[in-house]
Amino acid sequence: MQNTTETLTQTIDTEQLDKRREFDRSRPLERDETSFLIASDKVEGTDVFATDGDKIGTIDKLMLGKRSGRVEYAVMSFGGFLGIGEKFTPVPWESLDYSVDKNGYVVNIDKDRLKGAPNYHRNDEYIFDRAAGEQIYAYYGVMY
Amino acid sequence: MQNTTETLTQTIDTEQLDKRREFDRSRPLERDETSFLIASDKVEGTDVFATDGDKIGTIDKLMLGKRSGRVEYAVMSFGGFLGIGEKFTPVPWESLDYSVDKNGYVVNIDKDRLKGAPNYHRNDEYIFDRAAGEQIYAYYGVMY
Repeated sequence: MQNTTETLTQTIDTEQLDKRREFDRSRPLERDETSFLIASDKVEGTDVFATDGDKIGTIDKLMLGKRSGRVEYAVMSFGGFLGIGEKFTPVPWESLDYSVDKNGYVVNIDKDRLKGAPNYHRNDEYIFDRAAGEQIYAYYGVMY
Repeated sequence: MQNTTETLTQTIDTEQLDKRREFDRSRPLERDETSFLIASDKVEGTDVFATDGDKIGTIDKLMLGKRSGRVEYAVMSFGGFLGIGEKFTPVPWESLDYSVDKNGYVVNIDKDRLKGAPNYHRNDEYIFDRAAGEQIYAYYGVMY
């Protein structure tokens, strides 16, 4: 870790990255985010953008494997107004890239394709089983 | 999954587990918890008990690996009153066992040993680096 931090700092000096990223990387800590870690309650509520730059939703919560402790899905809420018509779509963690510029996640899907993504309404009984998992991961082009 | 579910059902029938657990397992879904998954916002706020049965705190949030999508630490808040004197201690996910009876997690540590666990106050600058990780995991007797 010590070495990694030093290497990062040197890279920043030589490549002259912008001030903002330099600042972010020079802080190995913060309690809700580090270079390597992020707090669950900071992820919840974060905006999600499509590849074309449009905001398409927000992260509602994360579904974690009880045994594995892995994020199996980030559940994104989208559509609706004051909760009416709102839908939820589970997205693989690997499909979300954080963008410092946008202050949110960019997901590798556009608005049209989002409409066909596996989703459910608040009162639906959505079954998070293996078949659903395979369908979701395949839709976002990620290995299940 | 199909097979797993069938096997589970058969095991329940033959071993005659209590009604509550049978009911839980017969529902492969629920959106904030399944047999295999749990929602991050359901974990947050859950009570934590020591091995001797005393309540020692609540889960404040989870620290996730940005790359890995793994829960690196469950951060437990303990002590204090209305936030004054409150402390936070990072606990390995593997150290938490969910107890249906207690409706909370049981951690493999007692109250006395908790006092010496790595912890920080709200305004401390706690460094979640490799050294801290090794110390935390060692304290709870889990491989880092």
